[in-house]
Amino acid sequence: MTGEDFKSANIILGEPNLIRDILPELPSLKWVQSTWAGVETLLGPGLRQDYHLTNVRGVFGRLMTEYVIGYLLFIERLMLQKIQAQQISRWDNTPPGTLYGKTLGLLGVGSIGSEIAKTAHHFGMNVLGFTLGSESSQYVDRYFHPPYENEFASLVDYLVVVLPITKKTYHLVDKDFLGSLPGGAILINVGRGSLIDDQALITSAKSGHLKACILDVFQEEPLSEGHPFWKIPNLFITYHTAALSYPEDIAPVFIKNYLLFFNDQPLLNNVNFLKGY
Amino acid sequence: MTGEDFKSANIILGEPNLIRDILPELPSLKWVQSTWAGVETLLGPGLRQDYHLTNVRGVFGRLMTEYVIGYLLFIERLMLQKIQAQQISRWDNTPPGTLYGKTLGLLGVGSIGSEIAKTAHHFGMNVLGFTLGSESSQYVDRYFHPPYENEFASLVDYLVVVLPITKKTYHLVDKDFLGSLPGGAILINVGRGSLIDDQALITSAKSGHLKACILDVFQEEPLSEGHPFWKIPNLFITYHTAALSYPEDIAPVFIKNYLLFFNDQPLLNNVNFLKGY
Repeated sequence: MTGEDFKSANIILGEPNLIRDILPELPSLKWVQSTWAGVETLLGPGLRQDYHLTNVRGVFGRLMTEYVIGYLLFIERLMLQKIQAQQISRWDNTPPGTLYGKTLGLLGVGSIGSEIAKTAHHFGMNVLGFTLGSESSQYVDRYFHPPYENEFASLVDYLVVVLPITKKTYHLVDKDFLGSLPGGAILINVGRGSLIDDQALITSAKSGHLKACILDVFQEEPLSEGHPFWKIPNLFITYHTAALSYPEDIAPVFIKNYLLFFNDQPLLNNVNFLKGY
Repeated sequence: MTGEDFKSANIILGEPNLIRDILPELPSLKWVQSTWAGVETLLGPGLRQDYHLTNVRGVFGRLMTEYVIGYLLFIERLMLQKIQAQQISRWDNTPPGTLYGKTLGLLGVGSIGSEIAKTAHHFGMNVLGFTLGSESSQYVDRYFHPPYENEFASLVDYLVVVLPITKKTYHLVDKDFLGSLPGGAILINVGRGSLIDDQALITSAKSGHLKACILDVFQEEPLSEGHPFWKIPNLFITYHTAALSYPEDIAPVFIKNYLLFFNDQPLLNNVNFLKGY
């Protein structure tokens, strides 16, 4: 199929990176429903903004939560160490750690962050949230806003980065921020690669200041063969699979919005071109 | 310290396997507070039963729950496969699985099983429980009792074995039971080693009928060097660390019971010598 086939479309349902290429060729475009949460590729400078852009919210929270809890437990319970002991038939009863009583910091508390907060609360964690201003989750025990990034960072055992990427959030996790995290913190990035300064992250992981990093997203995807991330022992790569867009999750979102669109009602999950999310 | 030092003791707080050895030498014994949940070593034939035996309940559920959820996510999210891909710099975006909508079967629903049920419910799982008769957890969607072991087994994606060991539960998970599990099931044993017939388990794991087994407890601990469990790729050993007895968890249990004992009140967490739990 080529861009040609789309010429008469009013509505496009699809992945933002594919839609971006055909955006100039759609004279009748009224509405784009993204199958992803992150739509930053449709917000670049010079791109048209004369249509309704909606993304997917509320369906990735559950998957992201399983991912975050799973990897925190993977680290806390020393799973890799236990497997390595088994390989040499060594009875390794080193006491594992626990989530209970730990402090989880959410860098971003939208629909995904709120779901993670709810489950963290279920596991007896304290939950801190850093947002630009919103304070919508009842499961966040304490909120922080700019310019208190580093104070927020200094209080967390686990940092979960789940912000959208905008001009304001680019490289928010930089050398200063990472330095403010307590020694032994665990960092998980399920937001976007460019929220983090890679060089600072590499330094922080290699020095052991971070106990572990679990990265789902990267500034370049797939990662190039020679990228230093591949070979850092306490850095775990998950290949942008933390929360995939499954048809059974996305279709109901589209259908609901389609009925609204058809009846000239306001659409759900509208993206604000100015804010970028 | 020798057994001699304990001679005048009315109260013993400690590990059942150590207490067993000094049991005959305690003429004034009135009460034993075990630091573990499993007290079967104090229930063997010929052992005295002329004292109050209490165990620890309600504190291991939280740790066991983290263990169970952690290892289910470890398998579902293909964590080991993802690490192996990273070792050869291969971008492995194989879609992972999810807990949501799966059916977890609890073989045993006491205080630990109830906690696991609650969290399984939080993650959107269906929860089935097999017990000898009790039906106390509100988070179990459906209960099964003897002789419906195999019907229960046939309905679960995940089997979590969390029964105490008694004459009635010895080798409850045998060849028939394992054969009744659906292909691709995941088995976790946090109860006792002898709940499961090891030979049948080895066959079931090696054939791939079980996708994975995670074993915390064994008929002999530590496992002998030549034990076949060490070398089965889809069998993971966790060295009896699923829920360790931490002083900060055990002390409050003892203190509460000590105050009851001192005031001639009935103790909490009494073990019934006849039932064996």
